[in-house]
Amino acid sequence: MSDTEIRLARLEARLQALQDHVAVCQVIARYGPQADTADTYDRGLKVGALWAADGVYELAEGWAGQGPDGIAGLLDNDVHRALVRDGAAHIPSAPHVTLRGDQATAINYSRVYKHVDGAFVVWRVSVNHWTLTRTDGGWKVQRRVNRLLNGSDEARAVLRAIDQAA
Amino acid sequence: MSDTEIRLARLEARLQALQDHVAVCQVIARYGPQADTADTYDRGLKVGALWAADGVYELAEGWAGQGPDGIAGLLDNDVHRALVRDGAAHIPSAPHVTLRGDQATAINYSRVYKHVDGAFVVWRVSVNHWTLTRTDGGWKVQRRVNRLLNGSDEARAVLRAIDQAA
Amino acid sequence: MSDTEIRLARLEARLQALQDHVAVCQVIARYGPQADTADTYDRGLKVGALWAADGVYELAEGWAGQGPDGIAGLLDNDVHRALVRDGAAHIPSAPHVTLRGDQATAINYSRVYKHVDGAFVVWRVSVNHWTLTRTDGGWKVQRRVNRLLNGSDEARAVLRAIDQAA
Repeated sequence: MSDTEIRLARLEARLQALQDHVAVCQVIARYGPQADTADTYDRGLKVGALWAADGVYELAEGWAGQGPDGIAGLLDNDVHRALVRDGAAHIPSAPHVTLRGDQATAINYSRVYKHVDGAFVVWRVSVNHWTLTRTDGGWKVQRRVNRLLNGSDEARAVLRAIDQAA
Repeated sequence: MSDTEIRLARLEARLQALQDHVAVCQVIARYGPQADTADTYDRGLKVGALWAADGVYELAEGWAGQGPDGIAGLLDNDVHRALVRDGAAHIPSAPHVTLRGDQATAINYSRVYKHVDGAFVVWRVSVNHWTLTRTDGGWKVQRRVNRLLNGSDEARAVLRAIDQAA
Repeated sequence: MSDTEIRLARLEARLQALQDHVAVCQVIARYGPQADTADTYDRGLKVGALWAADGVYELAEGWAGQGPDGIAGLLDNDVHRALVRDGAAHIPSAPHVTLRGDQATAINYSRVYKHVDGAFVVWRVSVNHWTLTRTDGGWKVQRRVNRLLNGSDEARAVLRAIDQAA
Protein backbone atom coordinates (compact mmCIF):
# COMPACT_ATOMS: atom_id res chain seq x y z
CA MET A 1 0.00 0.00 0.00
CA SER A 2 1.04 3.57 -0.59
CA ASP A 3 1.77 5.84 2.34
CA THR A 4 -1.55 7.59 1.70
CA GLU A 5 -3.45 4.34 1.75
CA ILE A 6 -1.78 3.30 5.00
CA ARG A 7 -2.73 6.60 6.63
CA LEU A 8 -6.30 6.38 5.33
CA ALA A 9 -6.70 2.84 6.63
CA ARG A 10 -5.35 3.84 10.05
CA LEU A 11 -7.68 6.83 10.22
CA GLU A 12 -10.65 4.67 9.25
CA ALA A 13 -9.87 2.12 11.97
CA ARG A 14 -9.35 4.75 14.68
CA LEU A 15 -12.53 6.57 13.68
CA GLN A 16 -14.52 3.33 13.72
CA ALA A 17 -13.33 2.69 17.28
CA LEU A 18 -14.46 6.17 18.38
CA GLN A 19 -17.83 5.70 16.68
CA ASP A 20 -18.22 2.35 18.42
CA HIS A 21 -17.34 3.94 21.77
CA VAL A 22 -20.00 6.61 21.27
CA ALA A 23 -22.56 4.09 20.01
CA VAL A 24 -22.11 1.96 23.14
CA CYS A 25 -22.63 5.04 25.33
CA GLN A 26 -25.78 5.89 23.36
CA VAL A 27 -27.29 2.42 23.92
CA ILE A 28 -26.68 2.78 27.66
CA ALA A 29 -28.15 6.33 27.65
CA ARG A 30 -31.38 5.06 26.05
CA TYR A 31 -32.18 2.64 28.84
CA GLY A 32 -33.40 5.17 31.42
CA PRO A 33 -35.95 7.09 29.34
CA GLN A 34 -37.30 3.82 27.90
CA ALA A 35 -37.54 2.18 31.34
CA ASP A 36 -39.13 5.25 32.94
CA THR A 37 -42.01 5.15 30.44
CA ALA A 38 -42.47 1.35 30.37
CA ASP A 39 -45.95 1.17 31.89
CA THR A 40 -47.20 -1.51 29.50
CA TYR A 41 -45.76 -4.71 28.08
CA ASP A 42 -45.57 -3.04 24.65
CA ARG A 43 -43.51 -0.18 25.98
CA GLY A 44 -41.36 -2.71 27.82
CA LEU A 45 -40.54 -4.17 24.42
CA LYS A 46 -38.88 -0.84 23.55
CA VAL A 47 -36.55 -1.42 26.50
CA GLY A 48 -36.07 -5.00 25.36
CA ALA A 49 -35.14 -3.81 21.87
CA LEU A 50 -31.85 -2.54 23.33
CA TRP A 51 -30.88 -6.19 23.90
CA ALA A 52 -29.74 -8.80 21.36
CA ALA A 53 -32.23 -11.56 20.49
CA ASP A 54 -30.64 -13.83 23.10
CA GLY A 55 -29.35 -11.04 25.37
CA VAL A 56 -29.71 -11.32 29.14
CA TYR A 57 -30.53 -8.78 31.85
CA GLU A 58 -29.55 -10.20 35.20
CA LEU A 59 -30.85 -8.04 38.03
CA ALA A 60 -29.78 -10.36 40.81
CA GLU A 61 -28.70 -13.98 41.15
CA GLY A 62 -31.60 -16.04 39.79
CA TRP A 63 -33.62 -13.01 38.63
CA ALA A 64 -33.11 -12.38 34.94
CA GLY A 65 -34.86 -11.91 31.60
CA GLN A 66 -33.68 -13.09 28.20
CA GLY A 67 -34.39 -11.53 24.82
CA PRO A 68 -36.51 -8.46 24.15
CA ASP A 69 -39.70 -10.21 25.30
CA GLY A 70 -38.07 -11.61 28.42
CA ILE A 71 -36.86 -8.14 29.37
CA ALA A 72 -40.29 -6.63 28.68
CA GLY A 73 -41.64 -9.31 31.00
CA LEU A 74 -39.14 -8.36 33.75
CA LEU A 75 -40.56 -4.82 33.82
CA ASP A 76 -44.21 -5.86 33.50
CA ASN A 77 -45.10 -5.87 37.17
CA ASP A 78 -46.86 -3.67 39.71
CA VAL A 79 -43.67 -2.32 41.29
CA HIS A 80 -42.31 -1.04 37.98
CA ARG A 81 -45.68 0.33 36.83
CA ALA A 82 -45.95 2.26 40.11
CA LEU A 83 -42.52 3.80 39.48
CA VAL A 84 -43.62 5.02 36.05
CA ARG A 85 -46.97 6.29 37.37
CA ASP A 86 -45.63 8.10 40.44
CA GLY A 87 -42.42 9.41 38.83
CA ALA A 88 -39.02 7.75 38.75
CA ALA A 89 -35.62 8.10 37.13
CA HIS A 90 -33.24 5.30 36.16
CA ILE A 91 -30.05 7.33 35.77
CA PRO A 92 -26.80 5.83 34.48
CA SER A 93 -23.33 7.24 35.09
CA ALA A 94 -21.05 7.82 32.10
CA PRO A 95 -19.61 4.35 31.42
CA HIS A 96 -16.03 3.11 31.15
CA VAL A 97 -15.97 1.31 27.79
CA THR A 98 -13.58 -1.33 26.45
CA LEU A 99 -13.80 -2.31 22.77
CA ARG A 100 -12.66 -5.65 21.36
CA GLY A 101 -13.69 -5.69 17.71
CA ASP A 102 -17.38 -6.63 17.50
CA GLN A 103 -17.66 -6.96 21.27
CA ALA A 104 -17.56 -4.30 23.93
CA THR A 105 -17.75 -4.23 27.69
CA ALA A 106 -18.81 -1.29 29.81
CA ILE A 107 -18.89 -0.65 33.54
CA ASN A 108 -21.01 2.05 35.10
CA TYR A 109 -23.19 2.93 38.05
CA SER A 110 -26.92 3.43 38.00
CA ARG A 111 -29.40 4.85 40.44
CA VAL A 112 -33.14 4.67 40.68
CA TYR A 113 -34.73 7.74 42.22
CA LYS A 114 -38.41 7.61 43.04
CA HIS A 115 -40.93 10.30 43.77
CA VAL A 116 -42.67 9.70 47.08
CA ASP A 117 -44.96 12.18 48.84
CA GLY A 118 -43.66 15.13 46.84
CA ALA A 119 -39.97 14.34 47.48
CA PHE A 120 -37.28 12.25 45.76
CA VAL A 121 -35.77 9.16 47.35
CA VAL A 122 -32.59 7.39 46.21
CA TRP A 123 -34.07 3.91 46.06
CA ARG A 124 -31.33 1.82 44.41
CA VAL A 125 -27.62 2.44 43.78
CA SER A 126 -26.05 -0.28 41.65
CA VAL A 127 -23.09 -1.22 39.52
CA ASN A 128 -23.52 -2.63 36.00
CA HIS A 129 -21.28 -4.80 33.88
CA TRP A 130 -22.44 -4.62 30.27
CA THR A 131 -21.38 -6.85 27.39
CA LEU A 132 -22.46 -5.52 24.00
CA THR A 133 -22.23 -6.97 20.55
CA ARG A 134 -22.28 -5.43 17.09
CA THR A 135 -25.28 -6.65 15.09
CA ASP A 136 -26.87 -5.74 11.75
CA GLY A 137 -29.18 -3.51 13.80
CA GLY A 138 -26.32 -1.72 15.56
CA TRP A 139 -24.81 -2.36 18.99
CA LYS A 140 -27.04 -4.45 21.25
CA VAL A 141 -26.74 -5.59 24.85
CA GLN A 142 -25.64 -9.21 25.11
CA ARG A 143 -25.61 -9.22 28.89
CA ARG A 144 -26.17 -6.66 31.62
CA VAL A 145 -25.40 -7.71 35.16
CA ASN A 146 -26.73 -5.30 37.78
CA ARG A 147 -25.86 -5.57 41.46
CA LEU A 148 -27.09 -3.42 44.31
CA LEU A 149 -24.17 -1.79 46.15
CA ASN A 150 -25.26 -3.21 49.49
CA GLY A 151 -21.87 -4.45 50.62
CA SER A 152 -22.22 -7.93 49.11
CA ASP A 153 -19.23 -9.81 47.74
CA GLU A 154 -21.15 -10.12 44.47
CA ALA A 155 -21.36 -6.34 44.05
CA ARG A 156 -17.64 -5.93 44.71
CA ALA A 157 -16.92 -8.68 42.17
CA VAL A 158 -18.77 -6.68 39.50
CA LEU A 159 -16.91 -3.48 40.44
CA ARG A 160 -13.59 -5.33 40.19
CA ALA A 161 -14.29 -6.02 36.51
CA ILE A 162 -12.64 -2.61 36.08
CA ASP A 163 -9.28 -4.35 36.71
CA GLN A 164 -9.65 -6.21 33.39
CA ALA A 165 -10.96 -3.18 31.46
CA ALA A 166 -8.38 -1.87 29.00
CA MET B 1 -13.53 12.08 -7.42
CA SER B 2 -10.64 9.71 -6.92
CA ASP B 3 -10.90 6.87 -4.47
CA THR B 4 -8.61 8.81 -2.10
CA GLU B 5 -10.80 11.88 -2.30
CA ILE B 6 -13.92 9.84 -1.58
CA ARG B 7 -12.31 8.27 1.47
CA LEU B 8 -11.05 11.67 2.70
CA ALA B 9 -14.49 13.23 2.30
CA ARG B 10 -16.14 10.35 4.19
CA LEU B 11 -13.59 10.58 6.98
CA GLU B 12 -14.12 14.35 7.25
CA ALA B 13 -17.90 13.94 7.50
CA ARG B 14 -17.72 11.16 10.10
CA LEU B 15 -15.19 13.11 12.14
CA GLN B 16 -17.33 16.24 12.02
CA ALA B 17 -20.27 14.26 13.38
CA LEU B 18 -18.17 12.97 16.28
CA GLN B 19 -16.89 16.47 17.03
CA ASP B 20 -20.46 17.76 17.00
CA HIS B 21 -21.53 14.99 19.37
CA VAL B 22 -18.75 15.88 21.80
CA ALA B 23 -19.44 19.63 21.45
CA VAL B 24 -23.11 19.11 22.35
CA CYS B 25 -22.10 17.12 25.44
CA GLN B 26 -19.68 19.90 26.42
CA VAL B 27 -22.40 22.58 26.24
CA ILE B 28 -24.60 20.47 28.52
CA ALA B 29 -21.68 19.83 30.91
CA ARG B 30 -21.09 23.58 31.28
CA TYR B 31 -24.57 24.32 32.60
CA GLY B 32 -24.08 23.00 36.14
CA PRO B 33 -20.89 24.82 37.15
CA GLN B 34 -22.24 28.05 35.61
CA ALA B 35 -25.62 27.72 37.37
CA ASP B 36 -24.04 26.78 40.71
CA THR B 37 -22.06 30.03 40.78
CA ALA B 38 -24.80 32.33 39.40
CA ASP B 39 -25.32 34.48 42.45
CA THR B 40 -25.62 37.75 40.49
CA TYR B 41 -27.38 38.78 37.30
CA ASP B 42 -23.97 39.14 35.62
CA ARG B 43 -23.00 35.60 36.46
CA GLY B 44 -26.44 34.50 35.28
CA LEU B 45 -25.49 35.93 31.89
CA LYS B 46 -22.71 33.32 31.70
CA VAL B 47 -25.41 30.66 32.01
CA GLY B 48 -27.47 32.52 29.42
CA ALA B 49 -24.49 32.57 27.04
CA LEU B 50 -25.01 28.83 26.52
CA TRP B 51 -28.29 29.67 24.76
CA ALA B 52 -28.83 31.10 21.27
CA ALA B 53 -29.95 34.74 21.05
CA ASP B 54 -33.59 33.62 20.84
CA GLY B 55 -33.14 30.33 22.73
CA VAL B 56 -35.67 29.28 25.34
CA TYR B 57 -35.34 27.58 28.72
CA GLU B 58 -38.71 26.21 29.74
CA LEU B 59 -38.66 25.04 33.34
CA ALA B 60 -42.37 24.29 33.55
CA GLU B 61 -45.47 25.11 31.55
CA GLY B 62 -45.69 28.89 31.55
CA TRP B 63 -42.36 29.41 33.32
CA ALA B 64 -39.61 30.16 30.82
CA GLY B 65 -36.84 32.57 29.88
CA GLN B 66 -35.76 33.61 26.40
CA GLY B 67 -32.33 34.70 25.24
CA PRO B 68 -29.22 35.06 27.43
CA ASP B 69 -30.74 37.94 29.40
CA GLY B 70 -34.06 36.16 29.87
CA ILE B 71 -32.24 33.12 31.25
CA ALA B 72 -30.09 35.30 33.52
CA GLY B 73 -33.39 36.74 34.75
CA LEU B 74 -34.81 33.27 35.46
CA LEU B 75 -31.96 32.57 37.89
CA ASP B 76 -31.94 36.04 39.45
CA ASN B 77 -34.13 35.27 42.46
CA ASP B 78 -33.77 34.55 46.16
CA VAL B 79 -34.30 30.79 45.84
CA HIS B 80 -31.46 30.39 43.33
CA ARG B 81 -29.13 32.77 45.22
CA ALA B 82 -29.72 30.73 48.40
CA LEU B 83 -28.72 27.55 46.52
CA VAL B 84 -25.44 29.14 45.44
CA ARG B 85 -24.76 30.58 48.91
CA ASP B 86 -25.57 27.44 50.91
CA GLY B 87 -24.12 24.94 48.42
CA ALA B 88 -25.88 23.16 45.58
CA ALA B 89 -25.14 21.00 42.55
CA HIS B 90 -27.03 20.95 39.26
CA ILE B 91 -25.78 17.62 37.90
CA PRO B 92 -26.63 16.36 34.40
CA SER B 93 -26.53 12.74 33.29
CA ALA B 94 -24.57 11.86 30.16
CA PRO B 95 -26.99 12.74 27.33
CA HIS B 96 -28.33 10.71 24.44
CA VAL B 97 -27.56 12.88 21.39
CA THR B 98 -29.10 12.86 17.90
CA LEU B 99 -27.46 14.98 15.18
CA ARG B 100 -29.26 16.31 12.11
CA GLY B 101 -26.77 18.57 10.31
CA ASP B 102 -26.76 21.95 12.04
CA GLN B 103 -29.38 20.88 14.58
CA ALA B 104 -29.08 18.42 17.43
CA THR B 105 -31.39 17.06 20.06
CA ALA B 106 -30.34 15.58 23.36
CA ILE B 107 -32.21 13.86 26.17
CA ASN B 108 -30.82 13.53 29.66
CA TYR B 109 -31.67 13.63 33.33
CA SER B 110 -30.65 16.28 35.80
CA ARG B 111 -30.71 16.52 39.55
CA VAL B 112 -30.38 19.42 41.93
CA TYR B 113 -28.79 18.51 45.25
CA LYS B 114 -28.81 21.10 48.00
CA HIS B 115 -26.82 21.41 51.16
CA VAL B 116 -29.09 21.75 54.19
CA ASP B 117 -27.95 21.60 57.81
CA GLY B 118 -24.67 19.90 56.93
CA ALA B 119 -26.29 17.20 54.76
CA PHE B 120 -27.21 16.82 51.10
CA VAL B 121 -30.80 16.57 49.91
CA VAL B 122 -31.95 15.46 46.44
CA TRP B 123 -34.24 18.38 45.76
CA ARG B 124 -35.21 17.98 42.09
CA VAL B 125 -34.95 15.06 39.66
CA SER B 126 -35.91 16.05 36.11
CA VAL B 127 -35.76 15.06 32.48
CA ASN B 128 -34.51 17.46 29.81
CA HIS B 129 -35.17 17.66 26.10
CA TRP B 130 -32.53 19.86 24.48
CA THR B 131 -32.57 21.28 20.97
CA LEU B 132 -29.24 22.78 19.95
CA THR B 133 -28.16 24.68 16.89
CA ARG B 134 -24.78 25.30 15.29
CA THR B 135 -23.93 29.01 15.29
CA ASP B 136 -20.86 31.10 14.43
CA GLY B 137 -20.11 30.99 18.16
CA GLY B 138 -20.36 27.19 18.31
CA TRP B 139 -23.27 24.98 19.41
CA LYS B 140 -25.92 26.86 21.39
CA VAL B 141 -29.11 25.80 23.11
CA GLN B 142 -32.21 26.65 21.05
CA ARG B 143 -34.62 25.15 23.56
CA ARG B 144 -34.34 23.24 26.79
CA VAL B 145 -37.50 21.78 28.23
CA ASN B 146 -37.13 20.58 31.82
CA ARG B 147 -39.82 18.61 33.62
CA LEU B 148 -39.79 17.37 37.20
CA LEU B 149 -40.22 13.59 37.34
CA ASN B 150 -43.24 13.80 39.61
CA GLY B 151 -45.45 11.39 37.75
CA SER B 152 -47.05 13.99 35.48
CA ASP B 153 -48.09 13.16 31.92
CA GLU B 154 -45.93 16.06 30.79
CA ALA B 155 -42.78 14.51 32.25
CA ARG B 156 -43.51 11.17 30.60
CA ALA B 157 -44.08 12.97 27.29
CA VAL B 158 -40.57 14.46 27.50
CA LEU B 159 -39.07 11.06 28.35
CA ARG B 160 -40.86 9.52 25.35
CA ALA B 161 -38.92 11.84 23.04
CA ILE B 162 -36.34 9.02 23.19
CA ASP B 163 -38.61 7.06 20.81
CA GLN B 164 -37.85 9.57 18.03
CA ALA B 165 -34.12 9.81 18.84
CA ALA B 166 -31.99 8.15 16.19
CA MET C 1 2.57 19.38 1.09
CA SER C 2 -0.01 18.13 -1.35
CA ASP C 3 -3.67 18.80 -0.77
CA THR C 4 -4.11 15.14 0.22
CA GLU C 5 -1.28 15.37 2.73
CA ILE C 6 -2.77 18.53 4.25
CA ARG C 7 -6.16 16.86 4.63
CA LEU C 8 -4.62 13.72 6.14
CA ALA C 9 -2.61 15.76 8.64
CA ARG C 10 -5.70 17.74 9.67
CA LEU C 11 -7.73 14.56 10.08
CA GLU C 12 -4.97 12.99 12.18
CA ALA C 13 -4.81 16.00 14.48
CA ARG C 14 -8.58 16.24 14.92
CA LEU C 15 -8.85 12.51 15.56
CA GLN C 16 -6.05 12.65 18.12
CA ALA C 17 -7.93 15.38 19.99
CA LEU C 18 -11.09 13.27 20.07
CA GLN C 19 -9.15 10.23 21.27
CA ASP C 20 -7.56 12.36 23.99
CA HIS C 21 -10.98 13.65 25.04
CA VAL C 22 -12.30 10.10 25.35
CA ALA C 23 -9.15 8.90 27.13
CA VAL C 24 -9.49 11.64 29.76
CA CYS C 25 -13.13 10.63 30.35
CA GLN C 26 -12.06 7.00 30.70
CA VAL C 27 -9.47 7.83 33.40
CA ILE C 28 -12.15 9.69 35.35
CA ALA C 29 -14.64 6.82 34.88
CA ARG C 30 -12.14 4.34 36.37
CA TYR C 31 -11.84 6.14 39.69
CA GLY C 32 -15.18 5.04 41.19
CA PRO C 33 -14.97 1.27 40.67
CA GLN C 34 -11.34 1.29 41.85
CA ALA C 35 -12.15 3.39 44.94
CA ASP C 36 -15.23 1.33 45.82
CA THR C 37 -13.14 -1.85 46.02
CA ALA C 38 -10.09 -0.34 47.76
CA ASP C 39 -10.31 -2.22 51.04
CA THR C 40 -6.56 -2.86 51.31
CA TYR C 41 -3.46 -0.77 50.70
CA ASP C 42 -2.66 -2.93 47.65
CA ARG C 43 -6.05 -2.22 46.10
CA GLY C 44 -5.56 1.44 46.97
CA LEU C 45 -2.48 1.32 44.74
CA LYS C 46 -4.80 0.55 41.80
CA VAL C 47 -6.55 3.85 42.51
CA GLY C 48 -3.17 5.53 42.85
CA ALA C 49 -2.09 4.15 39.46
CA LEU C 50 -4.52 6.62 37.85
CA TRP C 51 -2.21 9.42 39.03
CA ALA C 52 1.18 10.50 37.67
CA ALA C 53 4.26 9.63 39.73
CA ASP C 54 4.15 13.08 41.36
CA GLY C 55 0.39 13.62 40.94
CA VAL C 56 -1.65 15.09 43.79
CA TYR C 57 -5.14 14.35 45.11
CA GLU C 58 -6.27 17.24 47.27
CA LEU C 59 -9.45 16.38 49.14
CA ALA C 60 -9.53 19.53 51.23
CA GLU C 61 -7.12 22.28 52.16
CA GLY C 62 -4.25 20.57 53.92
CA TRP C 63 -5.53 17.03 53.25
CA ALA C 64 -3.83 15.55 50.23
CA GLY C 65 -1.86 12.56 48.93
CA GLN C 66 0.96 12.58 46.39
CA GLY C 67 1.94 9.84 43.98
CA PRO C 68 0.32 6.40 43.68
CA ASP C 69 1.50 5.35 47.15
CA GLY C 70 0.40 8.63 48.74
CA ILE C 71 -3.07 8.20 47.25
CA ALA C 72 -3.23 4.56 48.37
CA GLY C 73 -2.37 5.89 51.83
CA LEU C 74 -5.21 8.46 51.70
CA LEU C 75 -7.75 5.66 51.27
CA ASP C 76 -6.12 3.29 53.78
CA ASN C 77 -8.25 4.19 56.78
CA ASP C 78 -11.21 2.80 58.72
CA VAL C 79 -13.75 5.23 57.22
CA HIS C 80 -12.93 4.22 53.66
CA ARG C 81 -12.73 0.50 54.48
CA ALA C 82 -16.18 0.71 56.09
CA LEU C 83 -17.57 2.27 52.88
CA VAL C 84 -16.22 -0.62 50.83
CA ARG C 85 -17.44 -3.23 53.33
CA ASP C 86 -20.96 -1.83 53.83
CA GLY C 87 -21.52 -0.72 50.19
CA ALA C 88 -20.75 2.64 48.63
CA ALA C 89 -20.59 4.32 45.25
CA HIS C 90 -18.22 7.10 44.19
CA ILE C 91 -20.08 8.33 41.11
CA PRO C 92 -18.65 11.00 38.77
CA SER C 93 -20.69 13.17 36.42
CA ALA C 94 -19.68 13.32 32.76
CA PRO C 95 -16.83 15.86 32.74
CA HIS C 96 -16.30 19.04 30.77
CA VAL C 97 -12.85 18.56 29.19
CA THR C 98 -10.38 21.12 27.83
CA LEU C 99 -7.33 19.87 25.90
CA ARG C 100 -4.10 21.78 25.54
CA GLY C 101 -1.65 19.45 23.79
CA ASP C 102 -0.19 17.07 26.35
CA GLN C 103 -2.18 18.63 29.19
CA ALA C 104 -5.89 18.53 29.85
CA THR C 105 -8.22 19.94 32.44
CA ALA C 106 -11.61 18.59 33.36
CA ILE C 107 -14.38 19.79 35.64
CA ASN C 108 -17.08 17.50 36.97
CA TYR C 109 -19.20 16.68 39.98
CA SER C 110 -18.94 13.60 42.14
CA ARG C 111 -21.13 12.04 44.75
CA VAL C 112 -20.51 9.42 47.38
CA TYR C 113 -23.58 7.33 48.20
CA LYS C 114 -23.37 4.99 51.15
CA HIS C 115 -25.46 2.04 52.18
CA VAL C 116 -26.74 2.45 55.72
CA ASP C 117 -29.36 0.21 57.38
CA GLY C 118 -30.63 -1.12 54.05
CA ALA C 119 -31.02 2.33 52.45
CA PHE C 120 -28.80 4.67 50.42
CA VAL C 121 -27.64 8.04 51.73
CA VAL C 122 -26.11 10.83 49.64
CA TRP C 123 -23.09 11.39 51.84
CA ARG C 124 -20.90 13.79 49.83
CA VAL C 125 -21.61 16.02 46.81
CA SER C 126 -18.46 17.66 45.44
CA VAL C 127 -16.92 19.45 42.52
CA ASN C 128 -13.60 18.34 41.01
CA HIS C 129 -10.98 20.21 39.03
CA TRP C 130 -8.74 17.70 37.30
CA THR C 131 -5.42 18.39 35.57
CA LEU C 132 -4.18 15.47 33.49
CA THR C 133 -0.99 14.89 31.61
CA ARG C 134 -0.06 12.61 28.73
CA THR C 135 2.62 10.10 29.78
CA ASP C 136 4.23 7.03 28.23
CA GLY C 137 1.63 5.05 30.19
CA GLY C 138 -1.30 7.07 28.83
CA TRP C 139 -3.17 9.98 30.40
CA LYS C 140 -2.57 10.32 34.14
CA VAL C 141 -3.94 12.64 36.80
CA GLN C 142 -1.49 15.39 37.68
CA ARG C 143 -3.80 17.04 40.20
CA ARG C 144 -7.35 16.50 41.36
CA VAL C 145 -8.84 19.12 43.64
CA ASN C 146 -12.10 18.01 45.27
CA ARG C 147 -14.29 20.37 47.29
CA LEU C 148 -17.50 19.57 49.12
CA LEU C 149 -20.37 21.75 47.86
CA ASN C 150 -21.15 23.06 51.31
CA GLY C 151 -21.44 26.73 50.41
CA SER C 152 -17.75 27.54 50.98
CA ASP C 153 -15.95 30.16 48.89
CA GLU C 154 -13.40 27.47 48.06
CA ALA C 155 -16.03 25.25 46.44
CA ARG C 156 -17.37 28.13 44.36
CA ALA C 157 -13.80 28.96 43.28
CA VAL C 158 -13.41 25.42 41.89
CA LEU C 159 -16.78 25.63 40.07
CA ARG C 160 -15.73 28.96 38.53
CA ALA C 161 -12.82 27.22 36.80
CA ILE C 162 -15.47 26.56 34.12
CA ASP C 163 -15.07 30.23 33.09
CA GLN C 164 -11.53 29.47 31.84
CA ALA C 165 -12.47 26.16 30.20
CA ALA C 166 -12.39 26.37 26.42
